Amino acid sequence: MELLSQVLERIKPREEDYRELNEVRLYLLELVKSSSEELGLEVKPYFVGSLEKDTFLRGDHDIDLFLAFPLDTPLEVLREKGLELAKRIAEDLDRYEVAYAEHPYVRAYYKGFQVDLVPCYDVRDWRDVKTAVDRSILHTRWVLENLSGRNDEVRLFKKFLKGINAYGSEIYVRGFSGYLAEILVIKFGSFLEVLEKHDFMLRQKVIDPGNWLKREPEIAMKTVKREIEEDKPLVVIDPVDPRRNVAANLSWERYGLFYFNAKKFLENPSQEFFFPRVTPGNYLNELKRKGTHLLTLLFNPPDIVDDLLLPQVEKTAKGLARQLELEGFKVLGIDYGRNFIFLEVDRLERPIVSIKRGPLYFSSHGLRFYARNERVWIEGKDLYSEKPTEGWIVDVLEKILKSGMFSAGKQVKKAVQEADILVDYVPRSLRKDAYLFLSRMKFRIK
Amino acid sequence: MELLSQVLERIKPREEDYRELNEVRLYLLELVKSSSEELGLEVKPYFVGSLEKDTFLRGDHDIDLFLAFPLDTPLEVLREKGLELAKRIAEDLDRYEVAYAEHPYVRAYYKGFQVDLVPCYDVRDWRDVKTAVDRSILHTRWVLENLSGRNDEVRLFKKFLKGINAYGSEIYVRGFSGYLAEILVIKFGSFLEVLEKHDFMLRQKVIDPGNWLKREPEIAMKTVKREIEEDKPLVVIDPVDPRRNVAANLSWERYGLFYFNAKKFLENPSQEFFFPRVTPGNYLNELKRKGTHLLTLLFNPPDIVDDLLLPQVEKTAKGLARQLELEGFKVLGIDYGRNFIFLEVDRLERPIVSIKRGPLYFSSHGLRFYARNERVWIEGKDLYSEKPTEGWIVDVLEKILKSGMFSAGKQVKKAVQEADILVDYVPRSLRKDAYLFLSRMKFRIK
Repeated sequence: MELLSQVLERIKPREEDYRELNEVRLYLLELVKSSSEELGLEVKPYFVGSLEKDTFLRGDHDIDLFLAFPLDTPLEVLREKGLELAKRIAEDLDRYEVAYAEHPYVRAYYKGFQVDLVPCYDVRDWRDVKTAVDRSILHTRWVLENLSGRNDEVRLFKKFLKGINAYGSEIYVRGFSGYLAEILVIKFGSFLEVLEKHDFMLRQKVIDPGNWLKREPEIAMKTVKREIEEDKPLVVIDPVDPRRNVAANLSWERYGLFYFNAKKFLENPSQEFFFPRVTPGNYLNELKRKGTHLLTLLFNPPDIVDDLLLPQVEKTAKGLARQLELEGFKVLGIDYGRNFIFLEVDRLERPIVSIKRGPLYFSSHGLRFYARNERVWIEGKDLYSEKPTEGWIVDVLEKILKSGMFSAGKQVKKAVQEADILVDYVPRSLRKDAYLFLSRMKFRIK
Repeated sequence: MELLSQVLERIKPREEDYRELNEVRLYLLELVKSSSEELGLEVKPYFVGSLEKDTFLRGDHDIDLFLAFPLDTPLEVLREKGLELAKRIAEDLDRYEVAYAEHPYVRAYYKGFQVDLVPCYDVRDWRDVKTAVDRSILHTRWVLENLSGRNDEVRLFKKFLKGINAYGSEIYVRGFSGYLAEILVIKFGSFLEVLEKHDFMLRQKVIDPGNWLKREPEIAMKTVKREIEEDKPLVVIDPVDPRRNVAANLSWERYGLFYFNAKKFLENPSQEFFFPRVTPGNYLNELKRKGTHLLTLLFNPPDIVDDLLLPQVEKTAKGLARQLELEGFKVLGIDYGRNFIFLEVDRLERPIVSIKRGPLYFSSHGLRFYARNERVWIEGKDLYSEKPTEGWIVDVLEKILKSGMFSAGKQVKKAVQEADILVDYVPRSLRKDAYLFLSRMKFRIK
């Protein structure tokens, strides 16, 4: 397809990109060698990720260098010595900082590249895997063994996913990971064939490129069962580890973006899917157009990683929404980030009395209700009562926050309870988020 | 009880009331005689109602004079000749008008009395009853035979019921009729004993002073079954007709007013129950106090009697309320009269987009939904769409009215569709109704 060649023209790395990259790689390998000798460590360097697999897009300058320790290294030693080694290496680069995932690693920068120096175990297969990062070496090896020159097909697919906003397996995206994109191209043969399978894939549900259902039926079936029970859109059994669903983090929404855009592209292909024109809108205009209102809670999140924080913020947002609904406000939508919660509501005020339906009037409960309440009247056989309440949504929300009577993530509850509440207004840094949320652009397909 | 004597002092008719009444009675009897002779009709006059039973309150000047035709008179003849006779009699009174219930009668006025001249059949027992009014003669006779001097007890009970707003069996009240009050006093012995039975009565449910369950078990049981199925608070089998529940029109709300006020009076008796101080409030203050809003539909009702009209207006009011609720407005209360419907709502505006939840996105329904709608996005596995809609409640209500898509009484639907809609404002004539409704004073017990 002519169109695809044109796209590739724009996204394929150039000669000089590879040259530069190789220079940096060689330098890094030298550094690992000298530094580990210096520290008396027996460490093997592995380049992993899309640069190593040659499935990266032009301008993608993230080098992942894994520092693999022998399997018999105690975890504590790996952590301590790994970090020491990474720092030692990074000292000869431009600059660096220590970052934290499951265990600490070093993020360094060198000649325009971002270089992650990650200590791990030198695993040979899934039975050796001890920490979450250990699999990366196996992934890289599997892709290199199976890609058979379809690197550009992967590039097209990754760029397509980026263009339609479905790329990235981070917790705040929950889209397709690079590895998942590679597996799908390997499985179905090409970019276009992956697109053509947008419906088939969902119905087949289970993809098993590693043939685990034959090789390790018990473990693989357990994985399939678990993931189906958790209602994941796809179960792609990791070809290097039968215990893992490569698509575990893929949300129904992101799959939906792929689903409809694949259909649309096949019907009417265009470069727009890869290079969308973005015309950001104004969230205030959206509020006006819809006649709805935006509550924003701004808080200081605890210092924990996204993977731990965001699910807790989500739970809290849902908990607050539920309480507001019980108070008679309709919550039309929820969104959130590290330090904010958006609640789109149908109105800002409600009646300033709350009406309570009581028991049958001729029951002992009825007499108690009668005794306990101020204003009491009868409708049908039931007693009713009313009492003054807050009418302004901010007062209602503040009361909910203060009471603590809402479902929330443990580590964020306190922060959210002390949140600032903004009405129909967000700070500059959240304007774009507010627009994407209110316009539903985030998951719009039409 | 000293208190009750004081009340009686104020409500018992005086000597001169009886004297006047007797003069008018004699004059009326003469008129019936001369007029029926003049018209060649064989008609027997019966005074019925509380004046005849001597259970009326001072100042109650309603004379019911029934003109009883022989049982073999054809209904058409009774209607025509009955009306002719009634008019002939009324011509010798101060003034009159023709009124309509099941059949036409004459409402005349004479020396300060209202005199209803009602043609009927001269029935001897329930098997003869042909029209709704025929029973009145039997009722009057039964009360006279059974009251045994407890006339003042009835007067106290009736005045109590009036004071607590539970008296009158008209369709727009649905309280206790005079006849029901008399039966209860006869059954339980006195005013205070009736009050003491406020709970017992409800639990016993069936009251059978005519002993019909023994005398005509099949018919009486059928009555009991029917009334219990219709969930009436009381089943008082009419002592003169086993097919009828004297309390058929009594609503749970009015019984509830009796229930709680009986309890309160027994605990803490006071003249207030009989002579309540009425301090009418302002409906606008109620709206302000509650933070709610009042929609009023004003219409020109068809010219049919209350018994036919009001249930249809009620049905229509409920039908409109249901539609408004479906549109996202909360209807906190409903009230109505011959020419108006009140709807108390929680707000006047809603978002100006309506959000529609669609089918699963990966279904054929999903693709159709996608094709048919303008803005479409994904939440979870579902498609959603939105479109512009009316935000202002009057626009919403007008659209409902115009569409005709609401449950309504057949004979009032058109009138209501052409109603004027008022917001948070009522004409002078409805101010009191609006206050009683919004404050829930109508059925307040505390």
